[in-house]
Amino acid sequence: MSKFWSPLVRDLTPYSPGEQPTLPHLIKLNTNENPYGPSPNVLEALKREVGDSLRLYPDPNAERLKTAVAGYYSLTPEQVFVGNGSDEVLAHTFMSLFKQAQPVLFPDITYSFYPSLCKLLGVTYETVPLNDEFELSNKDYARPNGGIIFPNPNAPTGRLLPLSAIIELLQQNTESAVVIDEAYIDFGGETAIALINSYPNLLVIQTLSKSRSLAGLRVGFALGHAALVKALERVKNSFNAYPLDRFAITGAVASIEDRLHFEQTREKIIRTRDILVTKLCALGFRVVPSKANFVFVSHPGKDAAELCRRLREQSIIVRYLRQPRIENYLRITVGTDEECSNLIDALEGILHEFR
Amino acid sequence: MSKFWSPLVRDLTPYSPGEQPTLPHLIKLNTNENPYGPSPNVLEALKREVGDSLRLYPDPNAERLKTAVAGYYSLTPEQVFVGNGSDEVLAHTFMSLFKQAQPVLFPDITYSFYPSLCKLLGVTYETVPLNDEFELSNKDYARPNGGIIFPNPNAPTGRLLPLSAIIELLQQNTESAVVIDEAYIDFGGETAIALINSYPNLLVIQTLSKSRSLAGLRVGFALGHAALVKALERVKNSFNAYPLDRFAITGAVASIEDRLHFEQTREKIIRTRDILVTKLCALGFRVVPSKANFVFVSHPGKDAAELCRRLREQSIIVRYLRQPRIENYLRITVGTDEECSNLIDALEGILHEFR
Repeated sequence: MSKFWSPLVRDLTPYSPGEQPTLPHLIKLNTNENPYGPSPNVLEALKREVGDSLRLYPDPNAERLKTAVAGYYSLTPEQVFVGNGSDEVLAHTFMSLFKQAQPVLFPDITYSFYPSLCKLLGVTYETVPLNDEFELSNKDYARPNGGIIFPNPNAPTGRLLPLSAIIELLQQNTESAVVIDEAYIDFGGETAIALINSYPNLLVIQTLSKSRSLAGLRVGFALGHAALVKALERVKNSFNAYPLDRFAITGAVASIEDRLHFEQTREKIIRTRDILVTKLCALGFRVVPSKANFVFVSHPGKDAAELCRRLREQSIIVRYLRQPRIENYLRITVGTDEECSNLIDALEGILHEFR
Repeated sequence: MSKFWSPLVRDLTPYSPGEQPTLPHLIKLNTNENPYGPSPNVLEALKREVGDSLRLYPDPNAERLKTAVAGYYSLTPEQVFVGNGSDEVLAHTFMSLFKQAQPVLFPDITYSFYPSLCKLLGVTYETVPLNDEFELSNKDYARPNGGIIFPNPNAPTGRLLPLSAIIELLQQNTESAVVIDEAYIDFGGETAIALINSYPNLLVIQTLSKSRSLAGLRVGFALGHAALVKALERVKNSFNAYPLDRFAITGAVASIEDRLHFEQTREKIIRTRDILVTKLCALGFRVVPSKANFVFVSHPGKDAAELCRRLREQSIIVRYLRQPRIENYLRITVGTDEECSNLIDALEGILHEFR
């Protein structure tokens, strides 16, 4: 604390990202990274970007990337906003669409970055409880609001809301923005992007950090009606006109263009998830149905924090969130088959000792 | 405009960066980029960064880079904040230090990003007129304020405030943060970094975009007392915990470590600037004394906007800012000797036609 801080800073509770330890032989299942590397085409394109042109500013508008994303999803570049990771896209979204007189609504159990952002940006919010199965119900959102946002599939639960429910929500909520945060959609969900041309208040946010194996590159994007995208652009251009560096633009374009690598990797992860779920159930875990690249699990009678600590002793890191209603859950990223099988072996041993 | 926009967005005037045209044979002297490429060591380090580890998040704290910058300036890593270009560092600075009851003060002629940021972040500000020679006087800042900021050398004028004047300002202004934006300091000024341990309210901001030829990589940093840096970290971690991607961290570290390349390039630019100034004066231009990698010039009786347009017809782009008090000035980046000599030839021809 210092007398030079703004009053705002004094009251902040910043978001805590999952740790990034660099120990060798670590099995890192705590931040939902992809266990497979990015497309070889991406690596080639990035190598070509290394050169004297780094002395020049990047295109502040990242036109090449907007055009690639628009082409991929049959939209126009004016319907695409790009940012330095989907966290930055979320920040600009909250400021440009959610800073309203009415509170923005999101689930009580969700991405913990949302309340941090609200506090930073002075956005009023209310959390809406999920039911005991961690399901979201549209009727809970049928009230005046300054916007609605949730991840689909939700994090940290992994639960998917079907597209039919999203259509219902959009028909019910026409006076404020509805933002679907699809960070994990490629692992088994159906994207809401096809609804964009029908609903002027729908914004869909995606990231290249998960299904496209580019967490290290920091690229996210938002898709929606051109008028919504324009609001985000205005905020971005008052904050940081050049958020994407030359590598981010080039690598992201090459990634969007390589459909085959993308399909192959996500299919592998989905297969591994199914095997992992079966084995966890066999060990007595309750597993929330997941359409993400992670599973959210709880073991009756076994303390989750203790399980997390014991796994860590064996160099396996999973995520434990000390939060009401989920204090006995672990969020485990789907790694390679081998990593998941090591995890199962470790859990088997730990559960055996518990007896 | 859309009914889904927040009231804030409706009133915004976003900052307009200089254009980034991609015509061939262009002489681009409009955005103060370095005419020389980055250090070969930087390019090598970047090539090594291309690989499967891009699937992993970067270090959210960019420790390697903070350690490198701290070592270079004999500070501790806790005194270093890093961001995605100095524009982002400025945004976090305004929010964490300048969002106060009293207005932040900056010159009337200065980096036009400051008022944009104030409007976006709800920071009240007052501009303080420079004198007719575009000089800043400490006595104009001797009044209650929520912070003081200016670039040194100032942009777009290129004028340097000597370190003695900055010490005087710090002694006069002890109750709010004083931020020196040193984007251009390496081209002939003396940095205020040595004062950091003596003045707990001093923050110095620098960038790798100019003297280190890495505009395409997006890295800036702030140096100050650990308590000031902590305020910026709190805002950053509520906004975007991973602003620097893996390339930005790696390339910036290699750049900081290559002192020789840095010294050689900036000396070349300073030499070219001196030649350019002499030639511009010979053509009848009034040249504001510059310690930056650009010059700010005016020709008596010749319209600056017209000169800008005529240069453009010859594929030479310089910056014209349509602003009160400087509507007859051009800001010209110092390019290579050849680029500057082409510029002089073009100006000579244009001035001749004017007669």
